Amino acid sequence: MSEAVRIGLLGSGTVGGALRKLLVERGAAIEAACGRPIRVSGILRRSEGDFDSILNDSDLIVELIGGVDDARRYVLEALGQGRHVVTANKQLVARHGDELFDAARAAGVQLRYEAAVAGAIPVVRLLQEALAATEITKVAGIVNGTTNFILTEMARTRASYADALARAQQLGFAEADPTEDVNGADAAAKMAILARLAFHSPVNLADVSYEGIERVVAADIAYGAELGLTLKLLGVAERVGDALSVRVFPCFLYPGHPLAPLPGAFNAITVESPEITEITISGPGAGGIETASAVLGDILSIVSGSAPVPAPRGRIEISNHVESSYYLHLEVADVPGVLAAVATVLGRSGISVKSVVQRGLGDDARMEMVMHSAPETAFAAALAELADLDFMRSRPRAIRVLEEEFVS
Amino acid sequence: MSEAVRIGLLGSGTVGGALRKLLVERGAAIEAACGRPIRVSGILRRSEGDFDSILNDSDLIVELIGGVDDARRYVLEALGQGRHVVTANKQLVARHGDELFDAARAAGVQLRYEAAVAGAIPVVRLLQEALAATEITKVAGIVNGTTNFILTEMARTRASYADALARAQQLGFAEADPTEDVNGADAAAKMAILARLAFHSPVNLADVSYEGIERVVAADIAYGAELGLTLKLLGVAERVGDALSVRVFPCFLYPGHPLAPLPGAFNAITVESPEITEITISGPGAGGIETASAVLGDILSIVSGSAPVPAPRGRIEISNHVESSYYLHLEVADVPGVLAAVATVLGRSGISVKSVVQRGLGDDARMEMVMHSAPETAFAAALAELADLDFMRSRPRAIRVLEEEFVS
Repeated sequence: MSEAVRIGLLGSGTVGGALRKLLVERGAAIEAACGRPIRVSGILRRSEGDFDSILNDSDLIVELIGGVDDARRYVLEALGQGRHVVTANKQLVARHGDELFDAARAAGVQLRYEAAVAGAIPVVRLLQEALAATEITKVAGIVNGTTNFILTEMARTRASYADALARAQQLGFAEADPTEDVNGADAAAKMAILARLAFHSPVNLADVSYEGIERVVAADIAYGAELGLTLKLLGVAERVGDALSVRVFPCFLYPGHPLAPLPGAFNAITVESPEITEITISGPGAGGIETASAVLGDILSIVSGSAPVPAPRGRIEISNHVESSYYLHLEVADVPGVLAAVATVLGRSGISVKSVVQRGLGDDARMEMVMHSAPETAFAAALAELADLDFMRSRPRAIRVLEEEFVS
Repeated sequence: MSEAVRIGLLGSGTVGGALRKLLVERGAAIEAACGRPIRVSGILRRSEGDFDSILNDSDLIVELIGGVDDARRYVLEALGQGRHVVTANKQLVARHGDELFDAARAAGVQLRYEAAVAGAIPVVRLLQEALAATEITKVAGIVNGTTNFILTEMARTRASYADALARAQQLGFAEADPTEDVNGADAAAKMAILARLAFHSPVNLADVSYEGIERVVAADIAYGAELGLTLKLLGVAERVGDALSVRVFPCFLYPGHPLAPLPGAFNAITVESPEITEITISGPGAGGIETASAVLGDILSIVSGSAPVPAPRGRIEISNHVESSYYLHLEVADVPGVLAAVATVLGRSGISVKSVVQRGLGDDARMEMVMHSAPETAFAAALAELADLDFMRSRPRAIRVLEEEFVS
């Protein structure tokens, strides 16, 4: 029997526990897959263990403590000492990617982080290995299970955002403090990581602009459904001319879009390029066992001796000058000339209307419109102008619509 | 600049041409990804080139000539001479996998074949690397784009099988001789490859039982649609007790199934395991550029130095003693007692009825039924007995229905 690979495990929470269980239960398969047994040689717990001696006794460090500062210090130290590192820490990779990858390259060791994005779905491997030389034009994903659960629930039951969130918390799909999930920050960190991989550019969390789902109104989901549209919190990283746009925002999808049918707490990512048209990969979001399974896959790849850390290919500028199509909900006074006034404002800003439905009478009169694609700045200006029109009964509500052609 | 990796290319058809184009166009990205440039050092064409001298001048052989006998000889020779090999040849891998993988292991070289299954969709990599130590229970896939196009077309337009096939041929989604696609043989070869990977057992083409779509009737697709069911040609490899079942068959899917919405010529594969619940990966099936892109991904992985060929973990027996749920269409005489007679036959065979709809009158009287799961042998026996009942106006038509629980 070959000598065991020694794992130094930082953190002993749910994922750490699931990983240790997998290492035991799947021991024979692991040894068959990589030719050597793998054992945990040391565990750093909150209250016990000494990092230096754990590092000293390990061939590979698995970082599962979370947080940023301590995790960064440990990972840099491990890389500097020539240890391969596997981490599930999206905030760490999204905020300190440049520094960490430089350190890994300098030491000639691997830094793997499949578990940091979309749980057991091997999207990091897809981008880094299978599509390494593919000219990717766009990565779009549902990378936060909590918000997808809430939006699915709102669509299914017509529940308010607050009620759907409460139900998600009850069922364990949302944290007691759901802020980072619902405001888009969690998805933004994941999109920073995916954008870096897809475009070989040092994208960091600060480069990602994001909006959350806190202000989504159940009625708009229902109106969208009448038009065949499904609302998702989408992360999009795409080429915009010579620049790169990386954003997270709630967005309506047409029924043909591969991400539209994704249910509940699932995650999915679509990668587009001229060579592959589009590849979509979907599965459960992060849970203890799924995350541990992704960590184990990374460990096996390192032990099997796969690819070194690729160097970035130069920085691509970030630009937010993008075009989008919008859904627009206007609550208006039931008086003649309203549509003409709205259309005039939009037309002046160069925004053309794709469809408009007028509904209700009197105090319930409203319009639901879908626009063709136009610069977001132009749309924002038109929206401000619309809000000031004296027949508006409330603030206009706008939601992006992904305008795309689909293969079918 | 590091020394170039020399590719000996066997075959100069569509995929070979697309690969050479990609190697030139994506040269900078390729060198960035794997640290060395890659160039084609020799091409074996039908009418020109000498295999021995091409082999002599290459570090890596890419086999794209297709067919089995010559391809097998060349690949074995290349592996024996210590060359890594990339092939897109599903028949070769499905028929001679044992011999080829043994040769690669003996020589300590890699044999990669991502392009042999599902074009640019990296399902081989998913199973072999990301899920290497995962206990997979089932792999289900739509792995033939021609049949998915035909079935989608039949559902969309209510066209007959013959008309939909003609349209597929017209649009380039079916060959002039579509036999291997429509009879399930092509999908069977791919499922043999996937089953070998997922279950680490030496599964060969002869182990796969398959049925095609040639006898599918448009009316059944429409009846299925009324029940919310979509017809797909499905490949399924799954654990059945201690054995393994690997089959290809037309099958109705419920709307929640991740493969149900897959349109046109797309391919998709769902992998199930307790650790990951299910991961689905989808994209375009095999086209020249997609296949070349998958070949390029394999070349890059080899040059980057990734995993050796894993050894099989012992043979798992193949069993066809599986249970299935069925849709059943019966054209019957419009006389009293028909349902009772049918139900009696089914009940005697231990098959319970999930739903039944009686339609039409007189010469158009018919029944559409969906059964609960039961052994296929029991159902076949019941079907033979039903066919002999004197009120049957035609042969019963049966189609499997995938009976599953879904996360949502």
